[in-house]
Amino acid sequence: MDTIDLNCDCGEGFGPWTMGDDAALLPSVSSANIACGGHAGDPDTMRRTLRLAHTLGLNVGAHPSFPDLHGFGRRVLPMRPDELTNSILAQLGALTALAKAEGVRLHHVKPHGALYNQAAVTPTVAHALVEAVLTFDANLILVALANSALEQVGRAAGLVVAREAFADRAYEPDGTLRPRQLAGAVILDHAQNLAQTLMIVREGQVRTYDGSLIPLQAETICLHGDTPAAAARAAFLRRELEAAGVAVGGLQHG
Amino acid sequence: MDTIDLNCDCGEGFGPWTMGDDAALLPSVSSANIACGGHAGDPDTMRRTLRLAHTLGLNVGAHPSFPDLHGFGRRVLPMRPDELTNSILAQLGALTALAKAEGVRLHHVKPHGALYNQAAVTPTVAHALVEAVLTFDANLILVALANSALEQVGRAAGLVVAREAFADRAYEPDGTLRPRQLAGAVILDHAQNLAQTLMIVREGQVRTYDGSLIPLQAETICLHGDTPAAAARAAFLRRELEAAGVAVGGLQHG
Amino acid sequence: MDTIDLNCDCGEGFGPWTMGDDAALLPSVSSANIACGGHAGDPDTMRRTLRLAHTLGLNVGAHPSFPDLHGFGRRVLPMRPDELTNSILAQLGALTALAKAEGVRLHHVKPHGALYNQAAVTPTVAHALVEAVLTFDANLILVALANSALEQVGRAAGLVVAREAFADRAYEPDGTLRPRQLAGAVILDHAQNLAQTLMIVREGQVRTYDGSLIPLQAETICLHGDTPAAAARAAFLRRELEAAGVAVGGLQHG
Amino acid sequence: MDTIDLNCDCGEGFGPWTMGDDAALLPSVSSANIACGGHAGDPDTMRRTLRLAHTLGLNVGAHPSFPDLHGFGRRVLPMRPDELTNSILAQLGALTALAKAEGVRLHHVKPHGALYNQAAVTPTVAHALVEAVLTFDANLILVALANSALEQVGRAAGLVVAREAFADRAYEPDGTLRPRQLAGAVILDHAQNLAQTLMIVREGQVRTYDGSLIPLQAETICLHGDTPAAAARAAFLRRELEAAGVAVGGLQHG
Repeated sequence: MDTIDLNCDCGEGFGPWTMGDDAALLPSVSSANIACGGHAGDPDTMRRTLRLAHTLGLNVGAHPSFPDLHGFGRRVLPMRPDELTNSILAQLGALTALAKAEGVRLHHVKPHGALYNQAAVTPTVAHALVEAVLTFDANLILVALANSALEQVGRAAGLVVAREAFADRAYEPDGTLRPRQLAGAVILDHAQNLAQTLMIVREGQVRTYDGSLIPLQAETICLHGDTPAAAARAAFLRRELEAAGVAVGGLQHG
Repeated sequence: MDTIDLNCDCGEGFGPWTMGDDAALLPSVSSANIACGGHAGDPDTMRRTLRLAHTLGLNVGAHPSFPDLHGFGRRVLPMRPDELTNSILAQLGALTALAKAEGVRLHHVKPHGALYNQAAVTPTVAHALVEAVLTFDANLILVALANSALEQVGRAAGLVVAREAFADRAYEPDGTLRPRQLAGAVILDHAQNLAQTLMIVREGQVRTYDGSLIPLQAETICLHGDTPAAAARAAFLRRELEAAGVAVGGLQHG
Repeated sequence: MDTIDLNCDCGEGFGPWTMGDDAALLPSVSSANIACGGHAGDPDTMRRTLRLAHTLGLNVGAHPSFPDLHGFGRRVLPMRPDELTNSILAQLGALTALAKAEGVRLHHVKPHGALYNQAAVTPTVAHALVEAVLTFDANLILVALANSALEQVGRAAGLVVAREAFADRAYEPDGTLRPRQLAGAVILDHAQNLAQTLMIVREGQVRTYDGSLIPLQAETICLHGDTPAAAARAAFLRRELEAAGVAVGGLQHG
Repeated sequence: MDTIDLNCDCGEGFGPWTMGDDAALLPSVSSANIACGGHAGDPDTMRRTLRLAHTLGLNVGAHPSFPDLHGFGRRVLPMRPDELTNSILAQLGALTALAKAEGVRLHHVKPHGALYNQAAVTPTVAHALVEAVLTFDANLILVALANSALEQVGRAAGLVVAREAFADRAYEPDGTLRPRQLAGAVILDHAQNLAQTLMIVREGQVRTYDGSLIPLQAETICLHGDTPAAAARAAFLRRELEAAGVAVGGLQHG
């Protein structure tokens, strides 16, 4: 039976502020990536989100970032690799301590924003992240953009890597994501989101923006939570995937 | 043979700023309490300090605080007990992750500044701190002001508590520390620091500001690091304690 | 002709986060109190909000706070009066510089959250705030809770004070606001909001929670922006006030 | 009579932390550049430093930065020009408000760290800074590295620009500063600092690292405050300049 993991970022509030609607979106996914205080997430927000994800039976992961609340982790901060490793270690440690208080064991790590993008293309950044994960807990699954530098660096270091693909983003013929500022980069149509997901799950390929087919292996699909229709899209996708005989399930170690 | 632990707070810089001279002071103590990002201590500072303490063979502990960089943890922030517990958990987790990267196991927890003072007299604050330590790692030794609410709450919860006394602060007849703003509160004379320490170690009592003797049991003596003469005082105290046949040594579990 | 000012707090986002819907609410008010970086409001948010308020022709004021992003200015920070004055000065200066870039002159100052509440009852806090306003620009109108310590301190210092009342909060017989945690503290019914406002405007009195009538003079009514129905309530109130022959207009100096 | 301004950066502490010894250094200079909260400087530190500089009769300027306390403004943050302008406006406004409370009028603006370096070579950054100064107060003198993009952009915009040179840094034949990581970049010898300053003041030229002479016009010399010998160097330079018949004086408008 075909299986795919659905993941989303969550716990991305800070103090009085919220981002997205975790309570509406999380019931549709199988993995929750929780902000660790780098780009969002104070201790109370982290703990509330851990509890919610745990109650829903999700796999819980860390969602570390460049340390940049003001910029929400979307800016590439000029940091030495060892500084970045230390920051990520502190973020992983903070979330893990709160997870322990909720009886939750962390399952995976997915980098956020600029860290995700940089680690996908810049080996020094990928190494800084992998170094943190290896040091902290080598059993954590590393979620990386499929076909990225991070996927390679993580595997070479011995980590279990889960490859991530997107249901709502168009791909270029070279396998990269079509840049958001270009027409057609974001796929709003739910049926198309489903079709793209099914093709990735069943055929291991995706139809690119120019219509060609390229291989795309992935174990997890990212569902964005910061759009108004996010929860509806996620619910549709989960329901239709299961109706189509695809199991939505957690990532497996090893 | 008489034994006493000497502890000091360290790693209290942030970014470009430093506080005290850890490299000069730490060689004289047996326990290092490292700031965890609450009142001071970014990830790089934490890691550097962990390495220094480890190289010197010290027992390494966490030094959590009200989350208040601007106020250096000296202000009582109005926080609910569960908020305080969550903040302390995140601080313990961050330091522990960096400690793991340095091959260091945390040994004890000593609260900082306003948290130390509040936990000494306010049971709800003491409980919030003890709850964090118990949840995070019940094997950590809790360093608490001797005869404080924190000592009682920690013991009642089953933690090993090390009682702390001061070599450079005068005591009132009721066993509390003489407030800093009063004359004679701080004992600058090194010989007096030594005499007070020896009396605590050998006799389990201290001569108070008004000249009376009161019982004072303590397993560790705090050496302040934020005065110009801090390193000289610490070196003198250690040398003279050892010359007097007192072993300066780490706290023992159980 | 009867006149009343309607004011609301705005610009209370930070970085990627927003609070309330300024674009929906501001068209119904005559005065905008803009966060200055104390409890919310980075420079970009401040400037965007200044531009919006200016475009709508509103009177623009500063909304300073205890410096506490994490706590959104709802916590009483233990600060000396001079520290508080300095923090408020820096907030007023920052907003004024951005206002100048938008061709806007500040018109009033209304404290936020815990600062508002403390300044209403604690003369030292009221003095710290008044000192900042007097020093910065003695022509700014001070918006203060009607019958508060701040009203008295501000007037005694020579500031023009605009007294604030609430359309959606019940009053106690002693003239204080009924605490939020008590039943009936918040008045959700729009018709009641209107009736209370009209009674304040026309009769200078309000019917308290226990049914008695007490005097209540006010020149401005606060419209809260952080509830889902905020914009609808504000639009209703403005429309009905004008339909009832009450002019909604800016506060006047002197 | 020859005249030169001596300037130094100051007020670069934050909360409990200090940087350099302003009280020792400031008596030797004629212009003080005060941190505005971007890379350092909380409101209390700003105000204390304003008072100190004012008491000494110095010209007081703003020392804005990329908003980056953790990195002390030494990192190039990826910010849009309008974001940078807004941040600088907020910093200028905050310092000006506190200056007003001390009866001080700001006299000049000198950018800090990465902002200084970027504005010297990158026209978009120079424009973002100049835009903020022009908007805030077009009478402020802009202190810019001699022969930099900032000098050009500032002059073209109509600002009075004071060119800055260094007594303790070697110059390359192309007029740029010899990079710090290269041998001979920093000139520690006080007599050489004096000789280089005198040559700039009297001859409008400097002897470069390779021994050639190049023109260098400057109205102000930067004295670094973050070295142990900073105060002694500054005192020597001032005394010897005056002994050599050079007036140490404030920059002039126009």
